[in-house]
Amino acid sequence: MTSLGETLGAVRPVEPGPMAEARAHQDRLTKPSGSLGVLEDVAVRLAGIAGACPPPLPAPAALAIFAADHGVHAQGVSPWPQEVTAQMVANFAAGGAVANAFAAQVGASVTVVDVGVAADLAPADGLLVRKVAYGTADLSQGPAMTRDQATAALTAGAEVARDLVAAGARCLVTGDMGIANTTASAALICAFTGREAAGVTGRGTGVDDATYQRKIEIVRRGLRANGIAEAEAVPGGPDAALRVLAAVGGLEHAAIAGFVIGAAAARVPVILDGVIAGAAALAASALAPDTVGYCLAGHRSAEPGHAVALTHLGLEPLVDLRLRLGEGTGGLLAHPLVSAAARVMHEVATFDSAGVADKGD
Amino acid sequence: MTSLGETLGAVRPVEPGPMAEARAHQDRLTKPSGSLGVLEDVAVRLAGIAGACPPPLPAPAALAIFAADHGVHAQGVSPWPQEVTAQMVANFAAGGAVANAFAAQVGASVTVVDVGVAADLAPADGLLVRKVAYGTADLSQGPAMTRDQATAALTAGAEVARDLVAAGARCLVTGDMGIANTTASAALICAFTGREAAGVTGRGTGVDDATYQRKIEIVRRGLRANGIAEAEAVPGGPDAALRVLAAVGGLEHAAIAGFVIGAAAARVPVILDGVIAGAAALAASALAPDTVGYCLAGHRSAEPGHAVALTHLGLEPLVDLRLRLGEGTGGLLAHPLVSAAARVMHEVATFDSAGVADKGD
Repeated sequence: MTSLGETLGAVRPVEPGPMAEARAHQDRLTKPSGSLGVLEDVAVRLAGIAGACPPPLPAPAALAIFAADHGVHAQGVSPWPQEVTAQMVANFAAGGAVANAFAAQVGASVTVVDVGVAADLAPADGLLVRKVAYGTADLSQGPAMTRDQATAALTAGAEVARDLVAAGARCLVTGDMGIANTTASAALICAFTGREAAGVTGRGTGVDDATYQRKIEIVRRGLRANGIAEAEAVPGGPDAALRVLAAVGGLEHAAIAGFVIGAAAARVPVILDGVIAGAAALAASALAPDTVGYCLAGHRSAEPGHAVALTHLGLEPLVDLRLRLGEGTGGLLAHPLVSAAARVMHEVATFDSAGVADKGD
Repeated sequence: MTSLGETLGAVRPVEPGPMAEARAHQDRLTKPSGSLGVLEDVAVRLAGIAGACPPPLPAPAALAIFAADHGVHAQGVSPWPQEVTAQMVANFAAGGAVANAFAAQVGASVTVVDVGVAADLAPADGLLVRKVAYGTADLSQGPAMTRDQATAALTAGAEVARDLVAAGARCLVTGDMGIANTTASAALICAFTGREAAGVTGRGTGVDDATYQRKIEIVRRGLRANGIAEAEAVPGGPDAALRVLAAVGGLEHAAIAGFVIGAAAARVPVILDGVIAGAAALAASALAPDTVGYCLAGHRSAEPGHAVALTHLGLEPLVDLRLRLGEGTGGLLAHPLVSAAARVMHEVATFDSAGVADKGD
């Protein structure tokens, strides 16, 4: 077992040298300069992450779906019964969810990690039990987790990242499952970005107007109950970050934050899925600012808080198709785009090598 | 050889029955209703195209890159020498272009079709010579093509589609190469949508301010020289469509329009690449309105005319990454997204089959 402190200590900034080399190489390839848009930035980032130009192809990819339940579900913030978390874990394990179909499409493995489901789950292939608690406490009444619980979930996530990379994964993808987890996400995004609750709270998987208003109020109550001022970003630094994460996060948020930190420590790119991953990445970057250099934003979900989180992190989403499913689905869809960006650096001819005339200006 | 008239006559509307069935099936799957956003619409469309629910997986894909030169290049609308068209055809044939790398990424075949390059090309694997002319005439002085030339290029494109489907392709992707072809695209988009030249003309692969202003003026001159009023859509119907296509289009635009019509006649989805494909699809849909049901918009390019064309066609782009390369690159990147949408219809469990509780409202 690696301590969280050791993993945090292993995170280094992405390397500027290979990034500059990648940028220069892009301009020699047989295409107009800049014509691959955002994908040129992705290729440059991959070079910085790997510390090599051309960067290695980010394959195979491994999706980890972190599942947990939320005490705040008792406040009626979701139309779905809490049991759906456990039922969907069984669906992932049986290969029947959308995340499984998308993973098959892009050639990614699927690992499901129980870090806090409020039920004992039947053993299944591809299901890791790293349960920290049977769900969080109700964040609207006080801290959702103790510091020790948050640390344990962070550690579990970091270890899953380490183990997947050790098993050969060259790109990680975040996934989540947890009924009510968009409520905790909104609270985390409020705390880390200083935005108001109404601006970052969304309808999740689909709530009516009355539930939506209640959800915003519950996010506000959660901030108040934990001594976090609304519309004011919490102070920086790892200590405050851990306090906020424990206060209003979920066990899967903590685990995903650890997973992101673990990816950075292993120098492997991590594709963030939607709003849950965005909230977790805010926590990860508050714990270890250099981690954000290893993150690629897979997509922008329909949740308003997600765009706020991505802007705060300085990440541009690759896919924008009004998805609002979670599970890692948006992250998986981005994987072929990331691979395509890397492949350009290996396979495309230069103007010189192909005998193509460059632009005459 | 199949006549263009026979191909046009074979185009049928997409089938509403399987589309309704696909929509209903989406709502039984273990995901919140509508949570796959645009991809749910794609799956529904694929069911209508195939006339079957679930629709077949759209794989393997085949990219056809139609290459041609443009007389309007003489007006200084591009910083690239015209020879680059032929040089890039050689690059495609050698596997060294971005389109080749992206095709390898998504498992698509690459066929390059010379429908009008202004040079004789060395024979190469994967290069079809269906040359109609050594480039078009200068559209700013009068018709770029005769009606017969436009018809020959349309026929060539339709035959390529037919042959690729006969060889096993289950999804076609449009590609183009032709220095100065964004100028012809802008003129086509003006004529078919009734927008002004300044609103649809872009910087192509990268022109400076002075060249950009000249390019707009050349588009205007092209419309005037061919008796097409600016800011006024041409009358509907196939006869006017063919006249416009011949007047201000390129040989690759005509071939791509034929390719799209051929895909529709074969009941196979066709992923449109960027602004050249958008302009060609406007011509195709004016020649045979039902073709648009078979089109998926692969991406939205940086060219302003592309968004105008897509809106006119009622198509929503799947990828939006500020690409401005052409070749089919944006269309190829969309292919895994289209495949993922179809795969959901085959592999995802329903609430009943997975024992997952549905939302409680």
